[in-house]
Amino acid sequence: MSRRNYLFDNIRGVFRKFGFQPLETPAIENLATLTGKYGEEGDQLLFKILNSGDFLKNASEAYLSDRNSKLVTPEIAEKGLRYDLTVPFARYVVMNQHQHVFPFKRYQIQPVWRADRPQKGRYREFFQCDADVVGTNSLLCEMEIVLMISEVFEKLKLVDYTIKLNNRKVLTGITEVIGAPGMEGPLCVAVDKLDKIGEEKVLEELKERGFGDGAIAGVRPFLHLKGGNEEVLDGLEKSLAASRVGLEGVLELREVLFKVAGSGVAVPQIEVDPTLARGLSYYTGCIFEVKPTSVQMGSICGGGRYDDLTGTFGLPGVSGVGISFGIDRIYDVLDELGLFPDEAMQTSAVLIANFDDQSAFRALAVLARLRRAGIAAELFPEPAKLKKQFTYAESKSIPFLLMAGEAEFESGQFGLKDIRSGDQQTLTIEQIIDRLR
Amino acid sequence: MSRRNYLFDNIRGVFRKFGFQPLETPAIENLATLTGKYGEEGDQLLFKILNSGDFLKNASEAYLSDRNSKLVTPEIAEKGLRYDLTVPFARYVVMNQHQHVFPFKRYQIQPVWRADRPQKGRYREFFQCDADVVGTNSLLCEMEIVLMISEVFEKLKLVDYTIKLNNRKVLTGITEVIGAPGMEGPLCVAVDKLDKIGEEKVLEELKERGFGDGAIAGVRPFLHLKGGNEEVLDGLEKSLAASRVGLEGVLELREVLFKVAGSGVAVPQIEVDPTLARGLSYYTGCIFEVKPTSVQMGSICGGGRYDDLTGTFGLPGVSGVGISFGIDRIYDVLDELGLFPDEAMQTSAVLIANFDDQSAFRALAVLARLRRAGIAAELFPEPAKLKKQFTYAESKSIPFLLMAGEAEFESGQFGLKDIRSGDQQTLTIEQIIDRLR
Repeated sequence: MSRRNYLFDNIRGVFRKFGFQPLETPAIENLATLTGKYGEEGDQLLFKILNSGDFLKNASEAYLSDRNSKLVTPEIAEKGLRYDLTVPFARYVVMNQHQHVFPFKRYQIQPVWRADRPQKGRYREFFQCDADVVGTNSLLCEMEIVLMISEVFEKLKLVDYTIKLNNRKVLTGITEVIGAPGMEGPLCVAVDKLDKIGEEKVLEELKERGFGDGAIAGVRPFLHLKGGNEEVLDGLEKSLAASRVGLEGVLELREVLFKVAGSGVAVPQIEVDPTLARGLSYYTGCIFEVKPTSVQMGSICGGGRYDDLTGTFGLPGVSGVGISFGIDRIYDVLDELGLFPDEAMQTSAVLIANFDDQSAFRALAVLARLRRAGIAAELFPEPAKLKKQFTYAESKSIPFLLMAGEAEFESGQFGLKDIRSGDQQTLTIEQIIDRLR
Repeated sequence: MSRRNYLFDNIRGVFRKFGFQPLETPAIENLATLTGKYGEEGDQLLFKILNSGDFLKNASEAYLSDRNSKLVTPEIAEKGLRYDLTVPFARYVVMNQHQHVFPFKRYQIQPVWRADRPQKGRYREFFQCDADVVGTNSLLCEMEIVLMISEVFEKLKLVDYTIKLNNRKVLTGITEVIGAPGMEGPLCVAVDKLDKIGEEKVLEELKERGFGDGAIAGVRPFLHLKGGNEEVLDGLEKSLAASRVGLEGVLELREVLFKVAGSGVAVPQIEVDPTLARGLSYYTGCIFEVKPTSVQMGSICGGGRYDDLTGTFGLPGVSGVGISFGIDRIYDVLDELGLFPDEAMQTSAVLIANFDDQSAFRALAVLARLRRAGIAAELFPEPAKLKKQFTYAESKSIPFLLMAGEAEFESGQFGLKDIRSGDQQTLTIEQIIDRLR
């Protein structure tokens, strides 16, 4: 929890500094809001809440006698648990459209639930950590997202990562120039697997998905565009010369890089990658993905621009762009690289040992003084063997033990024991406060 | 959300300073864990989650054909949503008893869910905010709770409140000396209503609950113990002279007050109140309740010592003491008294106006510089009429608008407009950073 809070605190701090305000939505949504938004598999993974009271009363006789769980479900369960943060956010924006001045910038850090079989890295409850701006087409927002990514990982001291940047319009452009217009959906799904299954299998999959031999031959060079960002963009511009939308995508990518440069913030990790596709998602413009480079791990952060987040709830034409940090994976990366600082362990700075009731009573004023100085401190609640108190401090990663027995109070000199090294210094309370601060 | 976060941040800060560590438990628990813990009404208010897959497959034929919702429920729903934080905490302590060094101090701030009819002040989802120490009988923990309450409300600048303090043993003692031993349950339930229904109705209720006339006459003087804490305790000591457990309760109260005094922290708000009962709860020792005195409002914080939190999960004899802050009510009190500071509104310190693409591009470096100085800042994402940008800033409570057009960049002097007062100053970026800091 302490370490997870360390991640949340850092990410939240960056979101706030960039003008995003907190939003939380209820855990429970109407199933009508959630169903049909995440594909058929998603619908099955929704946790559904049994209606209160006599829920069987109005269930259909035929469904009950057939034991047709699927058809009975909507009759006995009207509510479900949040499956992601995007759909509830879209619902919220539509419901509150008249209360907000657009553009609307919100961040949201909350758990979501999926009725999946739990396994390593896949949980039934996990946190998502999103920031979105809706109600503007400005590419300044894309720039902001790059800067936020950069600042978050700078704060977390993660250096070895790549921000992959692409634009869905580039992928659309590719379908146009290879003679497969309208097929950006299957193209994205196939190309998205490039890292996992390799080029040959991707091309095979394209064939299965109905791309002709000529089109497949046309895709291949795009998988091999190499070099610096300028080089890749120049290459794309040439190859996509016949596609207006493709060129628009290239232009947008150039514009985002230009604005990032204009901010003066160095972000050497950005890499334009025409093979970044982000699967079946609803993105329509720039897309982002962050991958650590010194650890084997999938994407730890992803997002992009969508043109119609809220259309399904009756408010068409609201463009937005968002980013989502994958907290669980970031946790694993930092853990593997040993990047969690000691301070991430939220614990007391010092434990005052309890030798006897008399000196424990005298220690109360010391305890209050430490806390008044802003130092998290505890007094062991009962007189006990020092070993027991030591074990307690160790188990909570409390770094110091303060010896405060009768002799110490008489002399005004207290032992401060460093639990890890075993070193002990004799100090006054003032000195101890200075030291712990 | 910003204001709620302000409350959470302050309370969390105090919990941490007192050595409590964060714990979160899953939203979903097995219904077997939750059922039977909150009384019959509570069981009905549990949100139950429909089993995944073909949930009707193993339901009893007879229950289905009778449409017996109640009996079918456990066959089709094995999981439910957290109803409070105490039961999941007890479950957690038992499941992880071998991993923890006791005493175990945790705080937990999470939502809970109740399938209630929503109304003012009663929500289906609301936050609880608890801190508990388990595994020690030490009254130092009770002292710590008093000090935490005092520090939380000091931070929130709430001055007018009372910390009511009593001990369940005193109430047990009363049943003994009035000749109604073993009836502390009904006594607590009746006396708990004193504030709401008044003395006469409480005494009537005692009669209904089987207290004889002599016992009722014996209760009356306890409802009238007045004066300072010493006076009340002296009075109790005399009246409870015949009850060993009653005197033990008085002694514990004296000890807690003595330790609070020993800490040197002045807590003038403490008031020993022999009529404080805290209803049907599982408390066995000291009990606490906080009430604001300048606002009509029930208790905003409550807690106490329990002797057997974990017995129901197979680990008997674990004593603990806990406190719970009523976030929603505290919110209402602070709101009514106008105690939320402006800073509680988590928003950007400044909005840079966007006059045209050219100057917006030059503003990017200014934006980065402000943020590097730790200032939350935004650039309006597109060139727009100043009125529109002004409205945006106002709606987000952003206090300043920074004018950064071509002329300003040429001169190096920028207009900083105070949105509330309308005043505008002309300053360099350095001066603006100083000002906003």
